[in-house]
Amino acid sequence: MRKPCDYTPVWLMRQAGRYLQEYNDTRMKAGSFIKLAQSPDLACEVTLQPVERFGLDAAILFSDILTVPDAMGLGLSFVAGEGPKFERPIRDEEAVKQLHVPDPNNELKYVIDAVSAIRKALSNRIPLIGFSGSPFTLACYMVEGGASKDFRTIKTMMYSRPDLLHRILDVNAESVAAYLNAQIRAGVQAIQIFDTWGGVLADQAYKIFSLAYMRKVIDLLDLGKGEDRVPVIVFTKGGTPWLEAISHCGADAIGVDWTCNLAKARRLVQDGVALQGNLDPMVLFGSEKTIREECRRVLDDFGMVNSGGHVFNLGHGINQFTPVESVGILVEEVHSYSRKYH
Amino acid sequence: MRKPCDYTPVWLMRQAGRYLQEYNDTRMKAGSFIKLAQSPDLACEVTLQPVERFGLDAAILFSDILTVPDAMGLGLSFVAGEGPKFERPIRDEEAVKQLHVPDPNNELKYVIDAVSAIRKALSNRIPLIGFSGSPFTLACYMVEGGASKDFRTIKTMMYSRPDLLHRILDVNAESVAAYLNAQIRAGVQAIQIFDTWGGVLADQAYKIFSLAYMRKVIDLLDLGKGEDRVPVIVFTKGGTPWLEAISHCGADAIGVDWTCNLAKARRLVQDGVALQGNLDPMVLFGSEKTIREECRRVLDDFGMVNSGGHVFNLGHGINQFTPVESVGILVEEVHSYSRKYH
Repeated sequence: MRKPCDYTPVWLMRQAGRYLQEYNDTRMKAGSFIKLAQSPDLACEVTLQPVERFGLDAAILFSDILTVPDAMGLGLSFVAGEGPKFERPIRDEEAVKQLHVPDPNNELKYVIDAVSAIRKALSNRIPLIGFSGSPFTLACYMVEGGASKDFRTIKTMMYSRPDLLHRILDVNAESVAAYLNAQIRAGVQAIQIFDTWGGVLADQAYKIFSLAYMRKVIDLLDLGKGEDRVPVIVFTKGGTPWLEAISHCGADAIGVDWTCNLAKARRLVQDGVALQGNLDPMVLFGSEKTIREECRRVLDDFGMVNSGGHVFNLGHGINQFTPVESVGILVEEVHSYSRKYH
Repeated sequence: MRKPCDYTPVWLMRQAGRYLQEYNDTRMKAGSFIKLAQSPDLACEVTLQPVERFGLDAAILFSDILTVPDAMGLGLSFVAGEGPKFERPIRDEEAVKQLHVPDPNNELKYVIDAVSAIRKALSNRIPLIGFSGSPFTLACYMVEGGASKDFRTIKTMMYSRPDLLHRILDVNAESVAAYLNAQIRAGVQAIQIFDTWGGVLADQAYKIFSLAYMRKVIDLLDLGKGEDRVPVIVFTKGGTPWLEAISHCGADAIGVDWTCNLAKARRLVQDGVALQGNLDPMVLFGSEKTIREECRRVLDDFGMVNSGGHVFNLGHGINQFTPVESVGILVEEVHSYSRKYH
């Protein structure tokens, strides 16, 4: 992703999703979100849909961050209107003791098979990005038992039994690393670690309970070297306060949400680290004029593409109600306007 | 609040609230949250409860940020489990045209009467803080019609009809200023502007749609001069990316959430601006040892109290499930440990 090119490459977080009619059709065919994620052929099908429709510059594996705790035996289900639920959340010493690192080639084989299928279908046209949730973000769901507004359960553990949380995070870091290494062996050409909930932590707690474990994951990855190195992108939503610290965790690129303009972000991160982002996904609900202006602003903020590089993206996943034509406008504007910076 | 004292003063956002049994008793007596807020005598009663129980260093008017749009005629109600709802949200040109600045001494007289009652009951023991929502935060509720996860309705307006949103924000800024000036005339000794939702905005949008209108409010306030000046605190939740810009908006103090340590915050803001914060409210669910350690960390991060000053607070409102005894530990630790810095 750091090779010279004529324009700024663009992909969108959650680009295979409910805003696309063809995605909804495939999901209907699968029967449920979980069945869709667990079918390598259908996961391959939806992974390619946005790539074919919009001419995006990367594909991202269609899957869910909760496949890993599900493979640990926590019992994942999706309740309509409520989001993910775990039947057996991890809340006490006994449950923590029993946690184990799942074998990616066994419990998570369906994901690895999807990677192989997608690589084959793409036949080297564009790179495929693999991904995982961060150890802390997975722990949020594992301890809370689902989505949360105030993260009271996990923060109560953090502030009363930090030893238990550290143990969970250790197991998660090893699990995530094994999972990502299996994705790399199956052919993904870049990795993104989604730290969706690190941003809810206090300053020091972020560094201790989220960033340190992402660094541990990266240390355990078989990324290869030189030209063949598989680049790692770390994205903490709400991570603007910590961009400088994140740039030292071993990642090749940092995802930036829309609260930090990229000119400032470039000043904060160390040389050679690329930036990814950072359009507010809600811009896609605006007029065509506004979409083009806001895409230009992001490109202008980053400016000339230096050795670090810029990958255009949204600052968070695309909203399910996004008008499809807005995405076409975005891709076209990024590809045409960014040429001046290359 | 900037006079020399022997220890760091402390109050807690939402200190009169559901974690207190005596608050729940008074609310039951009132019949509902809205009736409680609309009764000057009962609002006075709950305002004083935490002050008397914990020996806090400031009282904050018990009220709700949505009193202002309610006074504009939008029809406020609270649905159990769903939060606030407006019967008549502001979503089109016609609704925007009809918006008016409410008269604080008429539609909001119950708040002003509560201020007078509380000042009398406090008889100058400690200062009383008045407050309002920020123009943008009020607009979020007015346009969305209630709470929101993605702020899709207001952001769609922002990115497609910014003129309409600017008109709403103009009316809100004038309404907030008139409301706060009436609170000042009735005796509040400090003002806090709660910008609960400014942090969901993109970098430039925050400055244009939230910060600029808080500056407008402050410009319109009759704060007095010298020793008698009523200090203004601006608190944007998620405002860490913009602390430097916020410090130039005319506020005397900036509320900081827990994502920025106060040592860094001090370096970012201009001289003479005080800081307020910034303990993660969830620390209060931890062990006594952790509560004391985390309070000390906040005080150590700020360090010696300079002319700007430090007011200890949480980084957001206290959680309704907080163990009451934790608050006592917090107040005691802040009062005893902070003496070394004064």
